[in-house]
Amino acid sequence: MLKMAQLFDVVADDLDRSARIFRDELASDQPHIRELCEHLERYHGKQVRPALLLLSARACGDLRPAHHVLAAVVEMVHMATLVHDDVLDEADVRRQSPTISRRWGPEQAVLLGDYLFSHAFRLCSTLEDQYAARLIGATAVSLCAGELRQVSNCQNYGLSENEYFEIIAGKTASLIGACSLLGAHYAGADEKTVERMHRFGIGLGAGFQIIDDVLDLTGDEKVVGKTLGRDLDKGKLTLPLIHCLKNSDETLRKRMLDVLNNGTPARGGLVGRMLAASDSLDYAARIAREHVQESIDILEHLPPSDARTSLTAMAEFTLTRKQ
Amino acid sequence: MLKMAQLFDVVADDLDRSARIFRDELASDQPHIRELCEHLERYHGKQVRPALLLLSARACGDLRPAHHVLAAVVEMVHMATLVHDDVLDEADVRRQSPTISRRWGPEQAVLLGDYLFSHAFRLCSTLEDQYAARLIGATAVSLCAGELRQVSNCQNYGLSENEYFEIIAGKTASLIGACSLLGAHYAGADEKTVERMHRFGIGLGAGFQIIDDVLDLTGDEKVVGKTLGRDLDKGKLTLPLIHCLKNSDETLRKRMLDVLNNGTPARGGLVGRMLAASDSLDYAARIAREHVQESIDILEHLPPSDARTSLTAMAEFTLTRKQ
Repeated sequence: MLKMAQLFDVVADDLDRSARIFRDELASDQPHIRELCEHLERYHGKQVRPALLLLSARACGDLRPAHHVLAAVVEMVHMATLVHDDVLDEADVRRQSPTISRRWGPEQAVLLGDYLFSHAFRLCSTLEDQYAARLIGATAVSLCAGELRQVSNCQNYGLSENEYFEIIAGKTASLIGACSLLGAHYAGADEKTVERMHRFGIGLGAGFQIIDDVLDLTGDEKVVGKTLGRDLDKGKLTLPLIHCLKNSDETLRKRMLDVLNNGTPARGGLVGRMLAASDSLDYAARIAREHVQESIDILEHLPPSDARTSLTAMAEFTLTRKQ
Repeated sequence: MLKMAQLFDVVADDLDRSARIFRDELASDQPHIRELCEHLERYHGKQVRPALLLLSARACGDLRPAHHVLAAVVEMVHMATLVHDDVLDEADVRRQSPTISRRWGPEQAVLLGDYLFSHAFRLCSTLEDQYAARLIGATAVSLCAGELRQVSNCQNYGLSENEYFEIIAGKTASLIGACSLLGAHYAGADEKTVERMHRFGIGLGAGFQIIDDVLDLTGDEKVVGKTLGRDLDKGKLTLPLIHCLKNSDETLRKRMLDVLNNGTPARGGLVGRMLAASDSLDYAARIAREHVQESIDILEHLPPSDARTSLTAMAEFTLTRKQ
């Protein structure tokens, strides 16, 4: 099977250029900040967001210098949220490495996240017009609002599917949607196409997050490369569990709620066994597929190109990935 | 004695307009976010930064709608840093109220800080030109870099005065300098005046932070309205202590270092008594006075006005405040 990175061959040079802009932006005369930023390099991972922005640009028109800057910006915003997420989740491992929070403590992780956010906005403001700055600002707001809503619903085992979808729309799909939108807009695409590409990214982002949540419940920690089972530990309901709770008979539901409320609902325990025996994991996968399929259908409106082929493959990959 | 707020009478209506922009920007359909933002209202305190921006505008030229927006922006950036500072400092009390971190937990405090940063940048990007967005982005970077440097130097009892000055230039003076600069720039002041007003704010900010650090060592918690003595608890060296360590004889210095390294150097303990017996608190106050005096002298270049008088009084107040 192809790896995600291979899908990005069409924009490999552009990703390199963005990575250089990313590094140059974070360059510091402070040795300690340099050390932190070097460690961050390990977090880059699949570079889904910059690649999506660059591929969207190529699929819709001309790839311009603004795209390279913006690809660095979206990766920086994403990285800021990862660093802060690791503080919130008290996670120890990220991409097979110790998290910033684990290695340098939560204080430095909070500040480094702020530092990344600030650089992202600064970099954004170097562009000629305000379009991207406005969108990135609004996107960051949605992102934080989604995360706040999620955290304030921890241990709320009555969370509805609808609330879950609104949360992931904010915390994940907003930034991924901004990537495809910015790619199209700065490539000179017409308004209709820009709006379609926005919807493409939003659908992809929702599918991506649902699969991420499934992997947190069922994935192999060594393959995924980060601490798993955190959602259960923190009392965060995600789609499979919401579905399972809704569709279990009353006795079973009460037992599950009892474990969730009072026990330590480890992935291997009662809750995990019930999930495995239910069709809720399949249900979540089906919903993810529906979102992603809508996105794939949107791409049919674009003229055929290598970039479009990569975007389609990327969307497909979202559903089959094990990490 | 006049209270700080009375100095701002010249721009009282403008401060109200900014406060409305601040509230409107943070308006949310999420009840939980509304609750957090309502609590934030208690943090506004003296509104030094928006007042400084607005007074600088009036003292240098015309006060325009962009100033009201920017006054809200700088207060939002400041508020974001306060909320995150309280997480870092594990502080319980801010302006006589429980901190966000204490009341809703560090997770929500981290996210609320990010939410405020994001809104600040979004609001900034609504202006017609990118000037403010670039400056605010760069200022936020300096701010975070200064804080990171401070945190990474905790328990470094060899910190030099020069390093201390660089830290406070980043974490405090950069934003206060940006306020007076933005006030002057958007009032249509010439380049020379804008540059002078920038220096005015930087000097004021440095003086302000030095006095803040003195108050953390000597202030009355009930008057200051926040948890004090945190710097010592965290092993943060500030100017009085740096001076005291440098100027004590070898035996005393060793005893102090021993307490700092191994004991719990409470304000009333050996370190506190040594500070009180030394001239190091006076020294810090003198250095603060020098910075602020330079700033006051800069104001002489502006034409006399009520706003200029308020700026001078504000600078004087920085040195004599007890909170």
